[in-house]
Amino acid sequence: MSTLRTLLGIRRPLLGAPMAGVSGGRLAAAVSRAGGLGFIGGGYGDHDWLVEQLELCDGQPFGVGFITWALARRPELLDLALQARPRAVLLSFGELGDLGRRVRDAGVPLIAQVQTVAQAIGAAHAGADIVVAQGGEAGGHGGWRGTMALVPAVVDAVAPLPVVAAGGIADGRGLAAALMLGASGALCGTAFYACHESLAHDEAKRRLVRASGDDTVKGPIFDWLRGIAWPDGPWSLRTLRNDSTERWGGDLDGLHRTLPEQQKVLERARHCADFDIAPVIAGEAADLVRERRSAETVVADFVQQAARCLGQPWPTLL
Amino acid sequence: MSTLRTLLGIRRPLLGAPMAGVSGGRLAAAVSRAGGLGFIGGGYGDHDWLVEQLELCDGQPFGVGFITWALARRPELLDLALQARPRAVLLSFGELGDLGRRVRDAGVPLIAQVQTVAQAIGAAHAGADIVVAQGGEAGGHGGWRGTMALVPAVVDAVAPLPVVAAGGIADGRGLAAALMLGASGALCGTAFYACHESLAHDEAKRRLVRASGDDTVKGPIFDWLRGIAWPDGPWSLRTLRNDSTERWGGDLDGLHRTLPEQQKVLERARHCADFDIAPVIAGEAADLVRERRSAETVVADFVQQAARCLGQPWPTLL
Repeated sequence: MSTLRTLLGIRRPLLGAPMAGVSGGRLAAAVSRAGGLGFIGGGYGDHDWLVEQLELCDGQPFGVGFITWALARRPELLDLALQARPRAVLLSFGELGDLGRRVRDAGVPLIAQVQTVAQAIGAAHAGADIVVAQGGEAGGHGGWRGTMALVPAVVDAVAPLPVVAAGGIADGRGLAAALMLGASGALCGTAFYACHESLAHDEAKRRLVRASGDDTVKGPIFDWLRGIAWPDGPWSLRTLRNDSTERWGGDLDGLHRTLPEQQKVLERARHCADFDIAPVIAGEAADLVRERRSAETVVADFVQQAARCLGQPWPTLL
Repeated sequence: MSTLRTLLGIRRPLLGAPMAGVSGGRLAAAVSRAGGLGFIGGGYGDHDWLVEQLELCDGQPFGVGFITWALARRPELLDLALQARPRAVLLSFGELGDLGRRVRDAGVPLIAQVQTVAQAIGAAHAGADIVVAQGGEAGGHGGWRGTMALVPAVVDAVAPLPVVAAGGIADGRGLAAALMLGASGALCGTAFYACHESLAHDEAKRRLVRASGDDTVKGPIFDWLRGIAWPDGPWSLRTLRNDSTERWGGDLDGLHRTLPEQQKVLERARHCADFDIAPVIAGEAADLVRERRSAETVVADFVQQAARCLGQPWPTLL
């Protein structure tokens, strides 16, 4: 069985998550330059944006991630990604089906991100080369199971496929913990969101750096406000709490009734970067992101801290 | 600063959670006999039950855990527990206040279980000797934050107090991961629920052993059906899904309207151990509980597997 490192050709077991609209070519390249593998966030499928970001990878290895159900509506974007010769394609949120087969037919490693043990078993049957077990701590869309119990259960369910842990990991302690759980590495989004190379807005980065994981919340509000019709599934969007989540979190009916009007409010707020109303998409690992740095520094600190954790003498357990 | 081991006088960094009505004296004694520390689950405060269980500890060390808001209504039970000379008292779900002070005044280590970083800071200020950071993966009542990101954030927030990780940990991989996250040990409930010494019903144990963490769900249904008025707070009950959670999970208003009738249905179901209707209280680590064993075997396997994880040579990260 191939390992994560040989499949992806990486020195360090750390992947930069394909955050939609945030993980562009520069961020992906910076993570890869530091020895991991950065992913471009194909998101909901913007052709021109993807072309542009693929050109910013600066000759570094990169992967491309897509939201599976959105890619199924614009499958030509997969051809675009595959033509750029990515190290891997990551699909999340939906059945792999024909899209997965096309990745494998192109000779590119297929990474399936899952949110439950049942999905992991399905992904293994559908031919995934690597499974990302994503806990609900993750920022953006994610499931309801926690990383700590999901990862070892997925490891057992899909063995000997390599498993990557995601959700709630933003420093070397989390990477070391992921390895203990049986994962071969970690995939991290929030850890890279506030990096210089991330395409997130400066004010959103500032808010993430100040926030605690206590300040995040999951719900459908911003999908509705952005007019993105997510299909039913075991997932939901995690963001920082703000005026929008406080106003509508307990009154989804009210939001539904006034949606066109509220969508305009959101549009204006995004235009002027008013993140009291617009979303800052962040995971529970927000506590661990305390400054804005380069992605290369983040990767280096990650692996140095993980190595210290793994290398220290532990009290005798037996 | 005292360590977890010196504070509690234990050889192995594993605590048996005080599961209400499930963790009696025999289970607590078995965990302690194996080198950890078992807790009796004081729960909602049944005087006679607590007296009985304290007598079953067989001379082994033990701790006692209480639901803080329930103990505040029956504070005499804390005197009963303290007179039995526990190794520690664990309080969860509510302000420590005077109860915490009385534990400390008795010279007994005070363990505060928290569900958020903000609560952890409050517990440290209130004089806790040890903080349990409990992720929402936990069975029974717990919060909404995941263990993976909560533990390192709490470690940083209350340093140098020792922190114990809880939620989603049911084998040595989870214990090793907890140590990597900066915790001094782990507190586990689901791992011990199906043990021979647990007071859970045989049929409930059988269902847990067959279940996946995918099959658990959080909600207020069983608190309502049992007539337990939990105060508002960042917590909710995790159980296995069954007919009751499927029937009422999407219709809390309907349950509220017919509550007296449904409470009778639950009472009958509990009487005849019908766990299609009555709750099996279980955490997301259910995937990792695959057989019914003695608690001593569980503890031994835990530490052997953790030692293997911690001792294996890791790929070079730097």
